[in-house]
Amino acid sequence: MLSFSYTKSRSSRFLPFHFPPFLPSFFHSVSLPLPLNPPKSSHLRLLHLPLRIRSIDAAQPYDYESQLKSRHLKSQSLKIAIIGFGNFGQFLAKTLSRQGHTLLTYSRTNYSDVAKKLGVTFYSNPHDLCESHPEVLILCTSILSTEKVLKSFPFQRLKRSTLFVDVLSVKEFAKNILLKYLPAEFDILCTHPMFGPESGKTSWLGLPFVYDKVRIGNEEERMNRCEKFLDIFAREGCRMVEMSCAEHDRYAAGSQFVTHTMGRVLEKFGLESSPINTKGYETLLDLVENTAGDSFELYYGLFMYNQNAMEQLERLDMAFEAIKKELFGKLHQVYRRQLFGTADGLEERPKIQKLLHNGAPVEPSTDTTEQERS
Amino acid sequence: MLSFSYTKSRSSRFLPFHFPPFLPSFFHSVSLPLPLNPPKSSHLRLLHLPLRIRSIDAAQPYDYESQLKSRHLKSQSLKIAIIGFGNFGQFLAKTLSRQGHTLLTYSRTNYSDVAKKLGVTFYSNPHDLCESHPEVLILCTSILSTEKVLKSFPFQRLKRSTLFVDVLSVKEFAKNILLKYLPAEFDILCTHPMFGPESGKTSWLGLPFVYDKVRIGNEEERMNRCEKFLDIFAREGCRMVEMSCAEHDRYAAGSQFVTHTMGRVLEKFGLESSPINTKGYETLLDLVENTAGDSFELYYGLFMYNQNAMEQLERLDMAFEAIKKELFGKLHQVYRRQLFGTADGLEERPKIQKLLHNGAPVEPSTDTTEQERS
Repeated sequence: MLSFSYTKSRSSRFLPFHFPPFLPSFFHSVSLPLPLNPPKSSHLRLLHLPLRIRSIDAAQPYDYESQLKSRHLKSQSLKIAIIGFGNFGQFLAKTLSRQGHTLLTYSRTNYSDVAKKLGVTFYSNPHDLCESHPEVLILCTSILSTEKVLKSFPFQRLKRSTLFVDVLSVKEFAKNILLKYLPAEFDILCTHPMFGPESGKTSWLGLPFVYDKVRIGNEEERMNRCEKFLDIFAREGCRMVEMSCAEHDRYAAGSQFVTHTMGRVLEKFGLESSPINTKGYETLLDLVENTAGDSFELYYGLFMYNQNAMEQLERLDMAFEAIKKELFGKLHQVYRRQLFGTADGLEERPKIQKLLHNGAPVEPSTDTTEQERS
Repeated sequence: MLSFSYTKSRSSRFLPFHFPPFLPSFFHSVSLPLPLNPPKSSHLRLLHLPLRIRSIDAAQPYDYESQLKSRHLKSQSLKIAIIGFGNFGQFLAKTLSRQGHTLLTYSRTNYSDVAKKLGVTFYSNPHDLCESHPEVLILCTSILSTEKVLKSFPFQRLKRSTLFVDVLSVKEFAKNILLKYLPAEFDILCTHPMFGPESGKTSWLGLPFVYDKVRIGNEEERMNRCEKFLDIFAREGCRMVEMSCAEHDRYAAGSQFVTHTMGRVLEKFGLESSPINTKGYETLLDLVENTAGDSFELYYGLFMYNQNAMEQLERLDMAFEAIKKELFGKLHQVYRRQLFGTADGLEERPKIQKLLHNGAPVEPSTDTTEQERS
């Protein structure tokens, strides 16, 4: 798999990066610096890409090139089944279909119209789908329903060498149930595309794709198939991160779960646009907008099926309590000073009471004068 | 004051908008639609500005134009004192100085070196500054120290018609103490530039500037001076919002104070960059970065001196509690079902206990199958 890397300016990590699908990757093998973080918007990141293709077969006649391209695409194409054709399954199907893979889809809900529009085959019976012998099977079920689906899945109708892929947001759980329910002959690739229909709407460039090759047979064909599948995301420009399921869950509890929690708290709070939004407030409004699109079931899944989530929730709780304590502690300090610290303590009393009730001024508790304010 | 408006696409409000300072405002009087929200990044907003200047005096000889410009700038220039020359005072001074105003600054701390670099006069004695008779005096002291400063300020050395401006983040409090301590002859303009050295680093374009003409004498000269002062911000492209101090505090408690609280909670939580940051998580990291630059004194001021802040803190607390209740309620429900709902309840017990301790899988509590996940 040919690739080139980009530099992440903040941490100067080198991360794999791949050309978009319209250029088959064997056409180029260059290394170029890509500043990921400096412009804060990911849209701007694109604008700042210092793309510099060093060699292109411009001298080749057009026909030869297009033949080569089509032959390459054909050799890269996979027969992929998507089990669970809801929001996320459909989102994946769009890109997979555009890349020229053959797609077979199944869902309990009848999504045959959606499938028709996307130009993919829809099966209302999983046995029929399995008898079509897909090479790869992606489980796009929700966290909560995955085990139920696996319990009754007609594995016996598939070829014994099928590659099973899951895309759940919790990985240790996914790994455990796939190992528990899948016949030993099947390959297992646990993945987490860390984006969805909202954040990956226009492009997947730079978005993290986490994977763990849990069980890939060591025949060349099986290893190649796994690489071909990973290449789907690499070609779209995803940041490919190979990481154990356990490690993923540790990081995700501290980042993804906390992000969802903040979004849900602010949604419950009832955050609304005001005529005087600051820049920071607008990022919070965006967060709520993005979180609101996800189901509570997903959020509950992130909490329930990641053993690190409870600890992070507790830490968040403690952080909130600590901030409140700092505020109230300072308030108490000022109150005490006014009650006991001055000669005319009694005279000051109504003043502090007014403060406690309607935020009227009190004496400064410190003697800072030229603070930043904004 | 000539201005043109832009349309805010989300709410289709019309808001005043002004040309940047390099073009004196009398050169143009156009109305143009400016989409504020569609591109989420403020940098992109700039790129999307459909700027269309309909008439420009291109036919005028260069000398005449530059003469006109310099005469105009001179007539617009003010003699402005900045009391409290800390972080925010210096931030304002840069732009005021660039616009050609005469600046006199005072601080208890000796900032004469900074003043020299900015090309402005620094006074170590407020009496000397007042004797120089500034037309406008901006209080750039912290919320906590403003009253202390006012109590001992040598107002008697100023001209009786001086315009007093404050830039505090809480406005009802500012209005009350200015009315309480300032001699009746002085004009009072309460303002809140809703940005600072971080968010207003590169440009003030589109950033909200809130103001309330608390007490402006009705002589033409006094009214003009107030407009000239407001024009400083209008020329930089600020979104000029005229709003009562009380109304400002209601909005700001629900937006600015909540934003600061979230930033501080996440800072206390210890949010850190991970190898698998989602887009949403990166906005939270940015929020913490921006909040960390502000002092705790400012945050405490937003809480203590805005009578609406306590209510918002309580609402935030309730929202967090509600989310936790939803999560734990669902957990309890699953636990009960496993304890009592199945025939082999006792057999299920170790399973749910495992879940409660390390997040292992349990039966789905609903039968949703194809949820979105991300």
